Amino acid sequence: MSSQWERFDRYYLRYPDLHFSLDISQVDFDENYLEGMNSRVERAFEAMQQLEKGAIANPDEKRMVGDYWLRAPELAPNSQVRGEVEDTNEAIYEFVRTIDSGELKTQNGSLFTNVLLIGIGGSALGPQFVADALSTKGDRMRVYYLDNTDPEGIDRVFEKIGDGLATTLTVAISKSGGTKETRNGMLEAAARYKAAKLNFAKHAVAVTGHRSELDRHAESEGWLARFPMFDWVGGRTSVMSAVGLLPMALQGLNTEQFLARAAAMDEKTRVTDALSNAAMLLALMWYKIGDGRGLKDMVILPYKDRLVLFGKYLQQLVMESLGKEFDLEGKAVHQGIAVYGNKGSTDQHAYVQQLRDGVNNFFVTFIQVDVGRQGPSIEVEPGITSNDYLHGFLRGTRSALHEKGCQSITISIDRVTPFSVGALIALYERAVGYYASLVNINAYHQPGVEAGKKAAAKLLELQARLVKELGSRNGKAATAGELAKAVQGDTEDIFHVLTYLSAPRGKVVRHSGDRPSEDTFVLE
Amino acid sequence: MSSQWERFDRYYLRYPDLHFSLDISQVDFDENYLEGMNSRVERAFEAMQQLEKGAIANPDEKRMVGDYWLRAPELAPNSQVRGEVEDTNEAIYEFVRTIDSGELKTQNGSLFTNVLLIGIGGSALGPQFVADALSTKGDRMRVYYLDNTDPEGIDRVFEKIGDGLATTLTVAISKSGGTKETRNGMLEAAARYKAAKLNFAKHAVAVTGHRSELDRHAESEGWLARFPMFDWVGGRTSVMSAVGLLPMALQGLNTEQFLARAAAMDEKTRVTDALSNAAMLLALMWYKIGDGRGLKDMVILPYKDRLVLFGKYLQQLVMESLGKEFDLEGKAVHQGIAVYGNKGSTDQHAYVQQLRDGVNNFFVTFIQVDVGRQGPSIEVEPGITSNDYLHGFLRGTRSALHEKGCQSITISIDRVTPFSVGALIALYERAVGYYASLVNINAYHQPGVEAGKKAAAKLLELQARLVKELGSRNGKAATAGELAKAVQGDTEDIFHVLTYLSAPRGKVVRHSGDRPSEDTFVLE
Repeated sequence: MSSQWERFDRYYLRYPDLHFSLDISQVDFDENYLEGMNSRVERAFEAMQQLEKGAIANPDEKRMVGDYWLRAPELAPNSQVRGEVEDTNEAIYEFVRTIDSGELKTQNGSLFTNVLLIGIGGSALGPQFVADALSTKGDRMRVYYLDNTDPEGIDRVFEKIGDGLATTLTVAISKSGGTKETRNGMLEAAARYKAAKLNFAKHAVAVTGHRSELDRHAESEGWLARFPMFDWVGGRTSVMSAVGLLPMALQGLNTEQFLARAAAMDEKTRVTDALSNAAMLLALMWYKIGDGRGLKDMVILPYKDRLVLFGKYLQQLVMESLGKEFDLEGKAVHQGIAVYGNKGSTDQHAYVQQLRDGVNNFFVTFIQVDVGRQGPSIEVEPGITSNDYLHGFLRGTRSALHEKGCQSITISIDRVTPFSVGALIALYERAVGYYASLVNINAYHQPGVEAGKKAAAKLLELQARLVKELGSRNGKAATAGELAKAVQGDTEDIFHVLTYLSAPRGKVVRHSGDRPSEDTFVLE
Repeated sequence: MSSQWERFDRYYLRYPDLHFSLDISQVDFDENYLEGMNSRVERAFEAMQQLEKGAIANPDEKRMVGDYWLRAPELAPNSQVRGEVEDTNEAIYEFVRTIDSGELKTQNGSLFTNVLLIGIGGSALGPQFVADALSTKGDRMRVYYLDNTDPEGIDRVFEKIGDGLATTLTVAISKSGGTKETRNGMLEAAARYKAAKLNFAKHAVAVTGHRSELDRHAESEGWLARFPMFDWVGGRTSVMSAVGLLPMALQGLNTEQFLARAAAMDEKTRVTDALSNAAMLLALMWYKIGDGRGLKDMVILPYKDRLVLFGKYLQQLVMESLGKEFDLEGKAVHQGIAVYGNKGSTDQHAYVQQLRDGVNNFFVTFIQVDVGRQGPSIEVEPGITSNDYLHGFLRGTRSALHEKGCQSITISIDRVTPFSVGALIALYERAVGYYASLVNINAYHQPGVEAGKKAAAKLLELQARLVKELGSRNGKAATAGELAKAVQGDTEDIFHVLTYLSAPRGKVVRHSGDRPSEDTFVLE
């Protein structure tokens, strides 16, 4: 390559019909690299074709992976799957129609005005990103979220909803139907409705796996509706299932455009010519930059406030999909790519100092949005608008980083719309799938998340045993060490539980010694 | 150490009077490490003492660094600095009193009900974090932010404010007074007030350096008030100056408690015994974990919704302070620590999969908050509350990571209050200062941020030249390459500017060829 311009000219990929472009010219790769990757690339294309045809792509869990069928049900491997998607979408639109039209009213006979989405991880990040990216003042409903088991956080949300609770439709989302944070959120919500003399069931909808704990609970209580999550859709790629479509439709956002453009991006990124396949190019660049071992963090910098949650969305999609201990042959590989980033130019003022001068353990993905705003703009200087500055800062930062040997990728879209958001999500879903093939891992399971949940459950059991033990001691104080013997538990765990229980307004009183081993505890 | 419990017992540090503890027992260090660091630790303590006495700690910019004086003006190196702090705080409280009491009313004679804070980076992240952490339904004012130069983002904020603009007090914050994003935000805001037939100056306050561009602008327009930013306070540590105190006080938050507990944490972390100094212990652990080279990312996981922005706040504080090219001797070192993280247990469902199984390039800082909520809690299972789960998930995840050799630090506080938030900020400010000494860099400048701004300015100049050139061509289209010769600019830059200008409703029309070099552009 004789110049950077020629390099750019050669590798700049655009899909004019999707108002999309991808610029990989500031990644340090060459033709030799691409040639050397040929066999891996072919394998990745084959694996994806198998997956889209309905192969068991998630062997641990013995299930198909078919996120792509959500936006193109005609490609589903059988009529049952196709029917599931089409029937569910139809049921969603019909339900939302009855809500919008007032056929289905609140207990007090009003129209619903709010949605309270209860979910966490894959059941919240997608809907949150989409709602924040696309909300307008014309939204039919305002959406609130319970995405944690923090009681104060829950209280704050209900404070914000206030008297609006009577016209709030709660949507509880959990694929397994047993996620504790979501279960707790649901119980807390039910208690709030009850306290307001409202029948929770008449304001509640479930999105969950068929016959899950949540599904059965909702059925037995007679909730307004239940929508299925399919076992062939992973939580982190569920935004185009009922998980994302129901809240979007309730909010009044255009789900058809969202799905259509995702399907269009799928088509573009199915082609087996790597250089014209944006998803494969992304995967190849990630591989090159991080040496196929995740050596560099992925910094996501959309220069657009509406896309501020995209980095958080990708944090889950990328890290949960790619952060794996073993490859497909069972060899320990400890893969993954760390992801962070909020928005430009704001983040420039937070950490571009480190990106430019500091430890070079990252690459930036710039996301440019061409159109500044709907209406006319004032000039902030003669002939210059606020958006000209936004564009200038993106380009300026890209150059300043390049000058220091920092690699970057630049994506551009025209506007933040259901179209472009659908396309971006589809692009990254497929890029993650391709990358997983390039490094030979399973992108579709998450075996590492159970250990923490089990350890948490054990701690809660220990808490119960400790409360019982302290109760039996008739006011006699004991150290963590003494209690460890009595309840047969780990001393440090016991100390932490007792410390937690002795917080203000807790059940336990602590008398502190100089060191934890000298602290004594007694039931209040 | 014979057991993990004994190790915990030995290294667990608590400040009972501050309701604070620090647990470093799950970091892989030993006594030999601490001994080996002795001379560096001593040097760090000395450097901090010099800094607090008023040494020129930022030699590039030839200024003192005295964030600590903001919460203990009696420690300022001279009476002028002390007076500046005390007078400014008094002026803030007096101003807020006149607002609260209605002595100072809006143009229409109403009480002010909203604050619109215009700032970016150090002039926004602190206020945003504090406001989000501490807001209650009893807040005196609602706070909105313009923290970018994205026109659509700006429009969205004004949509949310709606008719409330008439009772909105705009606070424009910029230390240099020349930050373009903030200048643009101010001009956009002024245009909005004007369109609503409101006198912007009668709704505007400036926080900026003495005699800055913003200061002079505010003076000439007769804004309601101007508060100084001191040259000895860096943007990223300015939250205890007028930058943070004015919005806090307007919101009705307790600034005295905020400052007092920060000062108390300063006292605790001034002691030169490393093992009882939480800030030095943090710095030492960061050093050990990342080998003094930032090899591991810092994942911040507060298990509390109110602290969700703490990771973003620390992202700036840590990365802008520590991400440096040269050490104090001028040797290229490329230091820094990457920071990300939102909140637990939510983030568990996003990326604990990678943390536990994937690339081991991180350490977690857990932040525990003991008290769950203000009022009583429902039981989500017999004897178990939502907050018990929150605590269980924190402990469970800590254990699950430890089991896989992932290191973590755990901080606990009692509640999220002005007290504890002040203490956390003070703790990290000092830890960052100590760490900078341990790795021998200047934590107080940011030489790397100018290049991107200059490149952006150059691009805007190029844009003006291009528009002029296209105008002179009488409708004759040209390629980027042809225009590069005509305006003497970089071909790729020109292509990007023209592409940007040819977005829908832009000034330029593009006729696309197969490759960028074949595209032609013409003025519309």
